[in-house]
Amino acid sequence: MIYKRQNKNKININPIQAGGILTKDARKTLIEWGDGYSVCDIWYSGKIDKIENPQIRKFINEDLPKFLGSDIARIIGGAREGICAIMHAVAKPGDIILVDENKHYTTILAAEKNGLKVVEVPNSGHPEYKIDVRDYEKLIKKHKPALILLTYPDGNYGNMPDAKKLGEIVIKYNIPYLLNAAYSAGRLPVDLIAINGDFIVASGHKSMAASEPIGVLGFRKKWKDTLFKKSFFYPDKEIEFLGHYQKGAPMMTLMASFPYVKKRVEEWEKQIEKARWFSAEMEKLGFKQLGEKPHNHDLLFFESPQLYKISQKHKEGRFFLYKELKKKGIYGIKPGLTKHFKLSTFAASKEELKKLLEVFKEILIK
Amino acid sequence: MIYKRQNKNKININPIQAGGILTKDARKTLIEWGDGYSVCDIWYSGKIDKIENPQIRKFINEDLPKFLGSDIARIIGGAREGICAIMHAVAKPGDIILVDENKHYTTILAAEKNGLKVVEVPNSGHPEYKIDVRDYEKLIKKHKPALILLTYPDGNYGNMPDAKKLGEIVIKYNIPYLLNAAYSAGRLPVDLIAINGDFIVASGHKSMAASEPIGVLGFRKKWKDTLFKKSFFYPDKEIEFLGHYQKGAPMMTLMASFPYVKKRVEEWEKQIEKARWFSAEMEKLGFKQLGEKPHNHDLLFFESPQLYKISQKHKEGRFFLYKELKKKGIYGIKPGLTKHFKLSTFAASKEELKKLLEVFKEILIK
Repeated sequence: MIYKRQNKNKININPIQAGGILTKDARKTLIEWGDGYSVCDIWYSGKIDKIENPQIRKFINEDLPKFLGSDIARIIGGAREGICAIMHAVAKPGDIILVDENKHYTTILAAEKNGLKVVEVPNSGHPEYKIDVRDYEKLIKKHKPALILLTYPDGNYGNMPDAKKLGEIVIKYNIPYLLNAAYSAGRLPVDLIAINGDFIVASGHKSMAASEPIGVLGFRKKWKDTLFKKSFFYPDKEIEFLGHYQKGAPMMTLMASFPYVKKRVEEWEKQIEKARWFSAEMEKLGFKQLGEKPHNHDLLFFESPQLYKISQKHKEGRFFLYKELKKKGIYGIKPGLTKHFKLSTFAASKEELKKLLEVFKEILIK
Repeated sequence: MIYKRQNKNKININPIQAGGILTKDARKTLIEWGDGYSVCDIWYSGKIDKIENPQIRKFINEDLPKFLGSDIARIIGGAREGICAIMHAVAKPGDIILVDENKHYTTILAAEKNGLKVVEVPNSGHPEYKIDVRDYEKLIKKHKPALILLTYPDGNYGNMPDAKKLGEIVIKYNIPYLLNAAYSAGRLPVDLIAINGDFIVASGHKSMAASEPIGVLGFRKKWKDTLFKKSFFYPDKEIEFLGHYQKGAPMMTLMASFPYVKKRVEEWEKQIEKARWFSAEMEKLGFKQLGEKPHNHDLLFFESPQLYKISQKHKEGRFFLYKELKKKGIYGIKPGLTKHFKLSTFAASKEELKKLLEVFKEILIK
């Protein structure tokens, strides 16, 4: 049975989709490598990062580390799997880890899975919900955490905390520092060494124009043996990810899109400009942007009590907004939300965003 | 950059690929859902198994359990991830688990990751390497294992141990019983309840005509809370797989191929007949089939000292066999092997296998 996707080729403002839309090359590559275990055609050495044709070795051992500013990079299933593996490697059950309050929920799940206690660095609350990285220091002194994590940016407000400054603080205490770059690596320049970090996790399907599930784990050399312990019984196999590299068609799409992704991060300033312009236009309509202002990321959160008021009288109820947008070919605001919602300006052009603004205007006038 | 696959549409006798070749419907579905996080178009409830359009709810909650004979099924990344999760749920560090000597290497890695000790039920050695499931009983009495695992079949010899008889033994001791069906579910009928098992893991990319990475974990109701503990902080999220169901394009290909896969398992007798015929033809050429005889699976292992002898004088050395087969459009024997090799007759037609036999004949005559 063929399953068709309804939202294909529409205006996409979904924060978790905007950075994962495949390039044309990735789309063609996907269909080439769709068969189960197809990459095993070329995978005979037991080490996927030894393959020269296609150039997987160079991609994993040179291109990705350079892109992330890490010494070493590994292909994994996604950012959350990377976070969980890092926690497993550097902390033991009962240890405390220190994370920002804006963390992704999977950070907490990974800590629970590893039996770790989590202490949170609070954000500034409504309306900006900012993380001041200086607040890590007193909690480091108090709790002596086994790991520091910073979400860069978070997935709700798109706030960009000062990762570099946190690196300067953390280095004094000799605690491993993990940057969750699921919403940054592939959208904007990130550099693990420049921020003095130990680990970075990136998401192929969230921000690197790749097919789910795929991610990248970058780290400093010194962590290699801790992270990737070898099996006692199979000395060439690593235990943490059960002896395999994530591969398959998703990895091939990551490779196929990579030249394009490398270029697009250089145009990040234009993305910020577009996001700020859009935010300002939304505020002219009476919506309130939460999170940092001026904003530094395409992920934007809005309060919209006007829409909530409309939904209470509308025959479609709280689904009216979703349906109005759908009529115009615009997807990505969660169905049923009206009081507040998040969206991304990353994939949509300024023209498309103008169309979105028009829809909001029409709704408010009606 | 577009990456082309060389081996596409060739005769495929690779044991880890033969059951994962996409159906036409899956290929069309793959390209529909290739974009990162595309399934989130339709995933708004927080529970992927609640989605009615397309019918993911029915697929996960009705079709898959019925197919595997389990009460409940979950989509996971692959069989190894399922094995690791089950070990994590039912055993604690230091516990002993009992597995067959023919187990996949990832069974051992999963045990190491969970801090478990492994006791193996030995096989019968050369030439059949059979597992007699009656041998589990004395080791159960001796070690009181926390988990029993049976590999059905193993990935080297394609031996099919008596899973049902093991169920009859295990039930007396009230020990959870896990069937690794990575090479069976999707190729032949399997039924967890019929064998009195507790858990079953299946592989979409190995045996269910799906795109990597995707698998299925089936289990009895009573294990639900043990396997899928909820987060204390996010009560609707399950910890083990960090709050997500494996989804994306691989899951959609699994669904797309499923009607076809359901049908093909009914034709398993024809597959056995083909495998036995091929094995007999190979033995006429002087090769020796190891593993069970008569054979009960498409995965076949051959000893071929004649080819090894040729390789020692051949200008291509040990790669001569791979290259000879490649010339004829036949892929799947590991490059460099000549002394012994494994292959699968699952995807190749009898006509294609005759072509393969001809190549062997020519090589031996030369």
